[in-house]
Amino acid sequence: MKTSILFGPVQEDLARVEGTLQSIKQVDYAPLAEMLEVVLAGGGKLLRPALTLLAGRFGEYNLDLLVPLAASVELLHTASLVHDDVIDGADTRRGRPTVNSAFHNTTTVMLGDYMFAHAADQVAQTGNIRVIRLFSHTLMVMTKGEIGQDLTAYDSRQTVRDYLQRIGGKTASLFATACQGGAVVAQESEQWIEALRTYGYNFGMAFQIVDDILDFTGDEAEMGKPVGSDLLQGTLTLPSLLLMERHPGDNPVQKHFAQPRQELLAQAVEMVRETDIPQESYDMARSFCARAHEALSVLPDDPARRALYDLTDYVLERRS
Amino acid sequence: MKTSILFGPVQEDLARVEGTLQSIKQVDYAPLAEMLEVVLAGGGKLLRPALTLLAGRFGEYNLDLLVPLAASVELLHTASLVHDDVIDGADTRRGRPTVNSAFHNTTTVMLGDYMFAHAADQVAQTGNIRVIRLFSHTLMVMTKGEIGQDLTAYDSRQTVRDYLQRIGGKTASLFATACQGGAVVAQESEQWIEALRTYGYNFGMAFQIVDDILDFTGDEAEMGKPVGSDLLQGTLTLPSLLLMERHPGDNPVQKHFAQPRQELLAQAVEMVRETDIPQESYDMARSFCARAHEALSVLPDDPARRALYDLTDYVLERRS
Repeated sequence: MKTSILFGPVQEDLARVEGTLQSIKQVDYAPLAEMLEVVLAGGGKLLRPALTLLAGRFGEYNLDLLVPLAASVELLHTASLVHDDVIDGADTRRGRPTVNSAFHNTTTVMLGDYMFAHAADQVAQTGNIRVIRLFSHTLMVMTKGEIGQDLTAYDSRQTVRDYLQRIGGKTASLFATACQGGAVVAQESEQWIEALRTYGYNFGMAFQIVDDILDFTGDEAEMGKPVGSDLLQGTLTLPSLLLMERHPGDNPVQKHFAQPRQELLAQAVEMVRETDIPQESYDMARSFCARAHEALSVLPDDPARRALYDLTDYVLERRS
Repeated sequence: MKTSILFGPVQEDLARVEGTLQSIKQVDYAPLAEMLEVVLAGGGKLLRPALTLLAGRFGEYNLDLLVPLAASVELLHTASLVHDDVIDGADTRRGRPTVNSAFHNTTTVMLGDYMFAHAADQVAQTGNIRVIRLFSHTLMVMTKGEIGQDLTAYDSRQTVRDYLQRIGGKTASLFATACQGGAVVAQESEQWIEALRTYGYNFGMAFQIVDDILDFTGDEAEMGKPVGSDLLQGTLTLPSLLLMERHPGDNPVQKHFAQPRQELLAQAVEMVRETDIPQESYDMARSFCARAHEALSVLPDDPARRALYDLTDYVLERRS
């Protein structure tokens, strides 16, 4: 399935967002330019920017405002990925995979800060204070979610409810803001703004749940990372939480958290794959997609709405 | 010398900035609240916010705009200090001192991001797009300066010119923005805005040079950190660069960089203290203060201008 087909009426305009992202790599300090080349390599799906543009289609579709906004969403996302690569001494021993392991921690932090600065600058180009503050609040929520994930690493006293709250902050909040921001900049009604925010939030929840399922069931080559990487980092996600629920007190996840061992991790992955846990997890993702669909009902039935509707299929069917 | 006396006409208004900073610690997630309590303990000098308020005294002194702006400056500064505490595996062995060593790297990064988000939110409260973009550009310049410092660590092929460029980005740019931002928000003339920016930039250069001198000549108890900490981290500053200039090819700094040893570091510190290098460095700081004074000449002679004028004495005379 090609996402390009699914972005419908905004597909061509995404090239302008890509152009903005590429322009950020033009910097007069060679070492920084080289690092940006790595993290803004281009050719990404631009899913979040596409949501921003699609959300803007229901109002005044002004690309001079929507393109910087969409670029800002992508930069916020990429900068947070860069910061996720910062590691602690202990983590390296656990073999935590990182995207940018070529850079030192200190440089990785500054690179991420530089990208946050550009995200702030792009959103400021909308001239819209409401959207600017929406972005700063989103970064607060995202970092709270990440801190929650850090502080509960290797802690098996978590519930599905904790998990949903955590991914709501870490992931869904930015999808919600991508949609809401587009609607605000396009000066849509409060009802539509709220509907698009709800769509984005539920879309983001489904997106993260599928991500977490694929970490167990995916193909390592397609994903470009080892299966079981969440457990390797001590992060409980929906499949491992369901596994623990089904085998309280005696399961490889808790044993692995008590004393990390490769064979316990492999056993946990195997147990998830052999059960209907992936299916149960997909059911939950599907229910978030259903809520996303429901939110769209107040919007006019046009190509943008159909594209948003169909994008949930992509989320459920993606393999990487 | 008490700085409180020197902040003159804005001294009392700084309490409002402090109040804003304290309010940011009120957060519904206890672990984050505890971390903010550490890094926003209060009782700091608030030098940068004071500059913002003083700069605003030459125009429409509206505290509803100037207080969030001043809080944003301080948050940007504090967040960058938090991110400076992120370390690499190798650095811990070199005994790099950190303020927040209680936190893990990953948590330290997210804590800093959270504070950047608040900095962005505070500056957005001015409703002034020009100032908002000034802040995002300043963060870009600051991070470039920090990356430059990281990438040239333990590299003895640096010059005083490189050093001045680096501290211009890392430190002086925020002082410049603190002043310029205050003037812009207070709707002053472009001439005054430029004058206050020039004042802030040169003030910041002097501030950092004195900081770097004190790292050699200061009292460990007063400073709360060991003497020679810059060299310990592989950072060349003005005194060590002058030492290398005077003893090309044979000096403890280059030897230490080639193979770090405590006795070489102690020898470098000793050599700087015994010569007139601190004096020569102070001369350079004084010349930046003179340029800062000069910039003030276009402004009306009132208590705010006198406070800015006198603050350079504090910079030159401070012991920690």
